[in-house]
Amino acid sequence: MAMVCLSDFEAYAKKYLPKIAWDFFAAGADDCSTRDENILAYERIRFRPRILRDVSVMDIRTKLLGTEISFPVGIAPTGFHQLAWPDGEKSTARAAKAMDICYIASTYSTCTLEEISTAAPGGFRWFQLYTYRNRAVSQRLVQRAEALGFQGLVLTADLPYTGKRRDDVRNGFRLPPHMKLKNLEGAFEVCTMSLLDPSVTWNDIYWLRSLTHLPIIIKGILTKEDAELAVRHGVQGIVVSNHGGRQLDGGPATIDALAEVVEAVQGRVEVYVDGGIRKGSDVLKALALGAKCVFVGRPALWGLAYKGEEGLQDVLRILQDEFRLSMALAG
Amino acid sequence: MAMVCLSDFEAYAKKYLPKIAWDFFAAGADDCSTRDENILAYERIRFRPRILRDVSVMDIRTKLLGTEISFPVGIAPTGFHQLAWPDGEKSTARAAKAMDICYIASTYSTCTLEEISTAAPGGFRWFQLYTYRNRAVSQRLVQRAEALGFQGLVLTADLPYTGKRRDDVRNGFRLPPHMKLKNLEGAFEVCTMSLLDPSVTWNDIYWLRSLTHLPIIIKGILTKEDAELAVRHGVQGIVVSNHGGRQLDGGPATIDALAEVVEAVQGRVEVYVDGGIRKGSDVLKALALGAKCVFVGRPALWGLAYKGEEGLQDVLRILQDEFRLSMALAG
Amino acid sequence: MAMVCLSDFEAYAKKYLPKIAWDFFAAGADDCSTRDENILAYERIRFRPRILRDVSVMDIRTKLLGTEISFPVGIAPTGFHQLAWPDGEKSTARAAKAMDICYIASTYSTCTLEEISTAAPGGFRWFQLYTYRNRAVSQRLVQRAEALGFQGLVLTADLPYTGKRRDDVRNGFRLPPHMKLKNLEGAFEVCTMSLLDPSVTWNDIYWLRSLTHLPIIIKGILTKEDAELAVRHGVQGIVVSNHGGRQLDGGPATIDALAEVVEAVQGRVEVYVDGGIRKGSDVLKALALGAKCVFVGRPALWGLAYKGEEGLQDVLRILQDEFRLSMALAG
Amino acid sequence: MAMVCLSDFEAYAKKYLPKIAWDFFAAGADDCSTRDENILAYERIRFRPRILRDVSVMDIRTKLLGTEISFPVGIAPTGFHQLAWPDGEKSTARAAKAMDICYIASTYSTCTLEEISTAAPGGFRWFQLYTYRNRAVSQRLVQRAEALGFQGLVLTADLPYTGKRRDDVRNGFRLPPHMKLKNLEGAFEVCTMSLLDPSVTWNDIYWLRSLTHLPIIIKGILTKEDAELAVRHGVQGIVVSNHGGRQLDGGPATIDALAEVVEAVQGRVEVYVDGGIRKGSDVLKALALGAKCVFVGRPALWGLAYKGEEGLQDVLRILQDEFRLSMALAG
Repeated sequence: MAMVCLSDFEAYAKKYLPKIAWDFFAAGADDCSTRDENILAYERIRFRPRILRDVSVMDIRTKLLGTEISFPVGIAPTGFHQLAWPDGEKSTARAAKAMDICYIASTYSTCTLEEISTAAPGGFRWFQLYTYRNRAVSQRLVQRAEALGFQGLVLTADLPYTGKRRDDVRNGFRLPPHMKLKNLEGAFEVCTMSLLDPSVTWNDIYWLRSLTHLPIIIKGILTKEDAELAVRHGVQGIVVSNHGGRQLDGGPATIDALAEVVEAVQGRVEVYVDGGIRKGSDVLKALALGAKCVFVGRPALWGLAYKGEEGLQDVLRILQDEFRLSMALAG
Repeated sequence: MAMVCLSDFEAYAKKYLPKIAWDFFAAGADDCSTRDENILAYERIRFRPRILRDVSVMDIRTKLLGTEISFPVGIAPTGFHQLAWPDGEKSTARAAKAMDICYIASTYSTCTLEEISTAAPGGFRWFQLYTYRNRAVSQRLVQRAEALGFQGLVLTADLPYTGKRRDDVRNGFRLPPHMKLKNLEGAFEVCTMSLLDPSVTWNDIYWLRSLTHLPIIIKGILTKEDAELAVRHGVQGIVVSNHGGRQLDGGPATIDALAEVVEAVQGRVEVYVDGGIRKGSDVLKALALGAKCVFVGRPALWGLAYKGEEGLQDVLRILQDEFRLSMALAG
Repeated sequence: MAMVCLSDFEAYAKKYLPKIAWDFFAAGADDCSTRDENILAYERIRFRPRILRDVSVMDIRTKLLGTEISFPVGIAPTGFHQLAWPDGEKSTARAAKAMDICYIASTYSTCTLEEISTAAPGGFRWFQLYTYRNRAVSQRLVQRAEALGFQGLVLTADLPYTGKRRDDVRNGFRLPPHMKLKNLEGAFEVCTMSLLDPSVTWNDIYWLRSLTHLPIIIKGILTKEDAELAVRHGVQGIVVSNHGGRQLDGGPATIDALAEVVEAVQGRVEVYVDGGIRKGSDVLKALALGAKCVFVGRPALWGLAYKGEEGLQDVLRILQDEFRLSMALAG
Repeated sequence: MAMVCLSDFEAYAKKYLPKIAWDFFAAGADDCSTRDENILAYERIRFRPRILRDVSVMDIRTKLLGTEISFPVGIAPTGFHQLAWPDGEKSTARAAKAMDICYIASTYSTCTLEEISTAAPGGFRWFQLYTYRNRAVSQRLVQRAEALGFQGLVLTADLPYTGKRRDDVRNGFRLPPHMKLKNLEGAFEVCTMSLLDPSVTWNDIYWLRSLTHLPIIIKGILTKEDAELAVRHGVQGIVVSNHGGRQLDGGPATIDALAEVVEAVQGRVEVYVDGGIRKGSDVLKALALGAKCVFVGRPALWGLAYKGEEGLQDVLRILQDEFRLSMALAG
């Protein structure tokens, strides 16, 4: 079976992953309308292609908060990579480094931050975190990440409670016994989502700021009002995101929310977007609408499920080739 | 089979109810386009979710005409609950009381108002009525309801004649011989829809007013013109409703009509809506558009069909949990 | 099988008519997009239902050019009724008379005008005609119709050539040998569509006017420009029609074109519409948009195919009941 | 099997062509959304049909840059006609000449320009070319075409690189060994797409101008900006084209882009369009929106696949008849 486009990896993952793992990765909240809108919205956006421009040499490198990457795609934070491939996030880290892009490691990794760092020394990585009721837990994670050379902190702000993903409820989804949320070992006796603090507000950005010198990127913004608040509270970056449609069903597609956020921000901070990226032309559309970079979640997991580090590189290389070709063809 | 969302109860009811009962509950007029629009219209409405608000404590209690309820969902008036569960409306009354919400008992109940009252003493209930050619019948019903402690009268105003529900015609739908329209026993020799008075006009609101001290809620309004008339004729509440799409096919979805009614009413009376509510996020959408409370019809019947009083509580609890979660996730 | 709505008759006709006859009646031009739009456009139109109006007495009678009919539905001109029922147009005439409505008899009837008149003496009928290269043929038809008591002439103006109906081409459609275009017997040696005159213009209305005292209704208008021309050339009525989607594929739905024509005409002549009427509520929508009456084509043929005169009456009675109910429910 | 419309030829070709050839001809880039939009966009355009105009005599002849053709349809440049029919482009040339229309021969023909000329002497033909890194190759092709009596040069400007057609990648598409890109024999050692020059800009129009006296038509324009540039650089014609949806997926349908180009050009050069033409009424729509002529690509290949020269004539004759009929019915 030739792996020609990202859908091929999706089909492979659906076929070969255990149903409970596939369902977990694929899950959207409620009726999955926002998850699906993320993709449909890209289809509705149309290029105005220009011709007869010299596209013989194209530079697709860019910078994220000053750090150069090979093309404007990164790995969005998703949990439980060992569900997709035995080496889990270590493979993810290696593939990201090999492709010279940014990998946002999730708090809910099945490898420790230390293992991730060791697996791909010198890779460009950010660390994604939640705010726990027990702030000391969050604080220790931030300090570990900073000490290990992670270059940014991505605060997920759209999960005061976990969205209702029907298939996960039906499946009684939980991690298999041999996998662990290793980054949280020792922090809690029993690790559940109810440890998250739903009382977090914008003021907690100042608390986070006080813990670290790393740039803070806030993830989960969908409106101009929140974008303005983010800038005022001193973040360095915004990820326009609806958590892959896994939280509030009925919200907008991220690519539809992007323009509003970009306009509000007026270049004061960098704006990224995740959700629904399936082709190189989707990347180009996001950039044309003002994103500095996009992040891919599920496609990275499909790549892992296919062949681990190598499969993820395949996915990224296809995206890179498609992105370059789209740029050339759009002039 | 895990009952995770309201659609699970719908699937159960479709599978286990006698076809003639399922068809009757599911029926819409003509091509059922309005019935289906009620649901589709919710899908088209998109949230603008806000983040980093303190959602650790949320009060979802509200008041209907001064009476507190546990969350802004009530039981819409539907007939013939014994078709769904042997105990019929007695179970409905118990579930509503247990959940601390408002139950609008239908004239076409298969239990008497007295049985309903006795089944769940002290429950918060309104009584739904039609206007009969023989006004004395309506008058007696009003007086019984008031005497039994019902706290409001819901006048259904969109049924001068019964809509054409094709499956009911094909099935030759009628109540099984062991069920009765008990509230009307003795009132008529033969009880048919043709006893309803199609000559009712706004002036009959004054007649109804003269019979009772209870607040009057009018059900079936879909336009600002009629909303204005309702306010002028002194009603206390409006249910924006198209009778579940069972009357005039080709009318608007209720959630689409809601905004127009709310704007016309300008807070002078309370506005509610029924039709198409299938998820907690639908409730939130209706409230965001100005409804004080929503009422659910078919989902309550599915709950009854599943496990009577207990099943209906399951349905309501799911709606409540989903509503609370949606509020938190929408900020 | 209960015949509850017009779709039931359609299903019956599709099942029991010879394929070649069903295909001929069902045919639309090219991809049938205009034929299907005729129906879809009605679905898009939404009522604003009003309540609490006295709908106990409703008068659904109306007048066509001064002649009273029992409700605002008539029989559109369609050819070859013997393909649907052995008695052909004689049955149609009897049903229309029994229902007290207007029947527009087609030139391409399989009964003579004389047979039609004799079958239902005193019925309200118009005669539909084309303009032949040999004007004497048209003239004789007009004179026969007038002499037989037909009360109007409907000039079909959208068929300079016959539209391309793919199934008819594939089927090699032609009348079975035992059926004849009886009205044209003797007029031509071989009767084909190429006898029609594609050079007809508005001036030919004057020629038609000179032949008869009957009112002239022009059928096939879809634009305000042509509506204005029709009025200026002295016609008495306009049928907004796209020939059931059988002529130019890609034109508008008739109900969409109706408003433009009504506005242009400003009440100077009566405006009717055909195409896509399948429910009583469709009739009401057309009237709300300014039509004086609607005409049904294919549904009449389905009624004939079901049980001849009796089946057609069934169809009309259903439409009448549905129309009356829609009026009541829409207030 | 009666061949009634172009879809019949499509079905035939799909059934009888080798899969690899069918896939190549049918291919669109990525998800084929632009390829499919080309067709869907025509469906959305609606006529405003006029009646009672004298359509007995209609002149459907027109001129392309001064040369008369029998009706406003030509053969778009497509490659590899021997994949569809053994005689390849020789058959195409004969059919185009027989029908008295313009045939744009592709550089990627499987017959030489000389063979094409000899097959149908005196036919009206343009030559389509790319710009090679080795300009001498392009130059020789231009000179051969001019010497052979080709009357125009069509510069394809939307292929700096080849679009990603997934099926071709999966199939490992390449020409069968017994077919050759005969026009390029001797020009390159190995003939691949990477010989094309992606650095071509508008200035290369001047270079092309210097090589030939033939009119230059530029193909692949989709925006008013590029249309303006084309006029300023002195071309004689523009083909609004997205390469049949085979290049950048996500661009507009050509018929949607046409109006913008026509308005920008203001009649200074002739504007043509290709992509999505499947019916005579599509031709009429394109002309109504300002195109001087349309070109058909895949339908011509289906005709060839059916019966070579004869099959292509069948396709063209159907288009011609449908176009004439549409004109008559639209008034």
